Amino acid sequence: MVVTMDQDYNVISDGAVVIRNDQIVDVGESDQLSSAYQAKKVIDGNGKLVMPGLVNVHTHSPMTIYRGYADDLPLLEWLYEHIFPVEAKFATPDNVRTGTHLAVAEMLLSGTTCFNDTYYFVDQMAEVVDSCGIRAVLSESVVDFPAPNSPNPDVGLSHTLDLIRKWKNHPLIRISASAHTPFTASADSIVRARQMAVDHGLIFNIHLSETRWEVEESIKKHGVSPVKFLDNLGVLDSRTIAAHCVHLDDEDIDIFTKKDVAVGHNPQCNMKLANGVAPIQKFLDRGLRVGIGTDGVASNNDLDMFDEMRSSALAQKLSAGDPSVLKAQSVVEMGTIMGARAIGMGDIIGSIEPGKKADVILLDLGRPHAIPHFNVYSLIAYSLRGSDVETVIVNGQMLVDQRKLLTVDLETVYQKVKRLSKKLKAFAGMPKVMGRSFLA
Amino acid sequence: MVVTMDQDYNVISDGAVVIRNDQIVDVGESDQLSSAYQAKKVIDGNGKLVMPGLVNVHTHSPMTIYRGYADDLPLLEWLYEHIFPVEAKFATPDNVRTGTHLAVAEMLLSGTTCFNDTYYFVDQMAEVVDSCGIRAVLSESVVDFPAPNSPNPDVGLSHTLDLIRKWKNHPLIRISASAHTPFTASADSIVRARQMAVDHGLIFNIHLSETRWEVEESIKKHGVSPVKFLDNLGVLDSRTIAAHCVHLDDEDIDIFTKKDVAVGHNPQCNMKLANGVAPIQKFLDRGLRVGIGTDGVASNNDLDMFDEMRSSALAQKLSAGDPSVLKAQSVVEMGTIMGARAIGMGDIIGSIEPGKKADVILLDLGRPHAIPHFNVYSLIAYSLRGSDVETVIVNGQMLVDQRKLLTVDLETVYQKVKRLSKKLKAFAGMPKVMGRSFLA
Repeated sequence: MVVTMDQDYNVISDGAVVIRNDQIVDVGESDQLSSAYQAKKVIDGNGKLVMPGLVNVHTHSPMTIYRGYADDLPLLEWLYEHIFPVEAKFATPDNVRTGTHLAVAEMLLSGTTCFNDTYYFVDQMAEVVDSCGIRAVLSESVVDFPAPNSPNPDVGLSHTLDLIRKWKNHPLIRISASAHTPFTASADSIVRARQMAVDHGLIFNIHLSETRWEVEESIKKHGVSPVKFLDNLGVLDSRTIAAHCVHLDDEDIDIFTKKDVAVGHNPQCNMKLANGVAPIQKFLDRGLRVGIGTDGVASNNDLDMFDEMRSSALAQKLSAGDPSVLKAQSVVEMGTIMGARAIGMGDIIGSIEPGKKADVILLDLGRPHAIPHFNVYSLIAYSLRGSDVETVIVNGQMLVDQRKLLTVDLETVYQKVKRLSKKLKAFAGMPKVMGRSFLA
Repeated sequence: MVVTMDQDYNVISDGAVVIRNDQIVDVGESDQLSSAYQAKKVIDGNGKLVMPGLVNVHTHSPMTIYRGYADDLPLLEWLYEHIFPVEAKFATPDNVRTGTHLAVAEMLLSGTTCFNDTYYFVDQMAEVVDSCGIRAVLSESVVDFPAPNSPNPDVGLSHTLDLIRKWKNHPLIRISASAHTPFTASADSIVRARQMAVDHGLIFNIHLSETRWEVEESIKKHGVSPVKFLDNLGVLDSRTIAAHCVHLDDEDIDIFTKKDVAVGHNPQCNMKLANGVAPIQKFLDRGLRVGIGTDGVASNNDLDMFDEMRSSALAQKLSAGDPSVLKAQSVVEMGTIMGARAIGMGDIIGSIEPGKKADVILLDLGRPHAIPHFNVYSLIAYSLRGSDVETVIVNGQMLVDQRKLLTVDLETVYQKVKRLSKKLKAFAGMPKVMGRSFLA
């Protein structure tokens, strides 16, 4: 069964997909295509569901090394007493490489074929992405406090420039520009990062209105909401993808609509850190592009987009007090084609259509939890899970075959993570010198 | 690594569990136990997590046949125009058998070793449970409208009496008494069902305060909340497990505390049907026994208790606006020993301790999403999933080995479900004669 996620939501119950090199060249009925094409290799899709690879629109993949490092803590304690200190010490080029490797393995095995990421040491991340064959949009997170690889935003921005030059024309990697948040990056840094996006035709990433605290601080400091603050800086347009967007009022949503800003929705992280439920159904009703992201593993604690899609529906229904809100089809749309559109890649990925890049996944429908099914979008949104993914193809290359990774040497990655986690455990037991004054 | 869930929360990093016949006879360090015992069979637990089997305290397992049958609909439309009509037509002995079979397969594969179920044609369910070797508490749901297998509550109650006699002394099956809800069963039926529980030493199941509508109706009709209504009937005590309990006020919680009523918490169902978030942390703070249940698959859409544990934590944090609420350890407790205590089985299952029945599961820690880990309860609550379960032992018998079911012939079950789902699809397309008048 092929779920295309094309404009007409075509689902072909006995379908086939023809891939040549990196592209999808045809989609249609299985019997017609098998007589029309001479295939070098045939993947048997009997009893499988074929769909576009999932697009994780907001994550910090190197943070897999902090999985479960600090859970069940108040937000500021979590961030300032655990995450920032551990990152200050352990976000090294080598550890970023290791974390990214683990993340790519996890993403591929659970059906994610493209991710949009902001972190530090992005060159190392890009090398891992290149070696594993997954697709990614990567950016250096520009902040106004000393970051692991840049003492100030100037250095952060120059990293971005280097990355743009180095990875230009790579078939799988796009660089983007990124400012961390409106309260950790100065107005000047935000404007400059965004200008770099404009100059080089990149998307522009920023975390926005994730917590109520952030909104209150912005109003105290700038007299306006974080959204209005950014709009006043002139940095919001269709190249912007704003992550979280939990606390937007109607005026903020009007601005988003007028400027065609895309939203990166992180339902599980927003719940786990108790930040709230973003008004996703409202965003969709206004025609905004909304994609789904896992955020980093330190606040999730996994990169499973199926889990995230399901949670997005549950949280919206709960929040609206209406079970008919955010229907399964919208959820699947956000996880695929709308996510692709949110990161400026709707023209090349996100659906199974001739001319698009061949980012395709096959899921096993043979486990009890997948049986029976009456509506394919319900099946995907509510019943299937990352562990049902059997085959993953990115850019025409098979990266997961029968649940086995073909381009990642897991054992080597595990050994590195194991060594590192011993050091992290020791560090967790030490008194932190930075504490809450870290940002001040 | 053995996570015992005993009173001291002992975790043994290089542990072993000794099972003889249906019982756990010893738990301790691997090297000590391997020299103290001569084992006939050794299951290699290297790289695995060993924990008590999960206890699903509230489900309607035969409803797996309606998985995805009616999603994303307003509650009353869902119930009266889809679920009740389809049950009236399709809840036959044969279909109940098929649905239970599919459910048991799904539960075993995802680590559930005991479930508490209320439905119709319970004798057929018990036969399936017996043949598969899972542990269950089963009850006939007594209602005051014509149920699939009983025209009136008298017949429903007589079914319960038959079941008690037939399944007495079965090593895996306990019968319980059950009244459906305070608004679908009359006061008389509720009192009689509960009296049967008292007379025969059974637990007593009831759905309670699931929706705001139910509470409002109760106040209109009886002048008091559903909890107070039941308390006035004198049916609340420690043998009662009340499912959902979303809309309880402080007085209701006082009554629960005084009467030691147990709670069956169904977080995903409560979200998906937009009923709200039950005040679980409050219940726990008052010392109430709270277990986790999946509810039926028509409102979930799966029976994965790992998924349900994770959702319970996320929803509590969100609802409280505090990420430190409902910590991972409490979640795992609710999924195991506290769930067992909630259904009156805390003395024989729910933890890995000498003298308890051997209901034990082994999970693979070798997948990327399980690595690294710093806190074992975080690992279980936030990272592991049903698909990580490799081995399942119930009552000393191995039922799942290397992710394969040993006591369920899946192909035969699938063929039956497939035939049935064709009929269900045809029925879904037909105009319903019952509509909302079904209950009237």
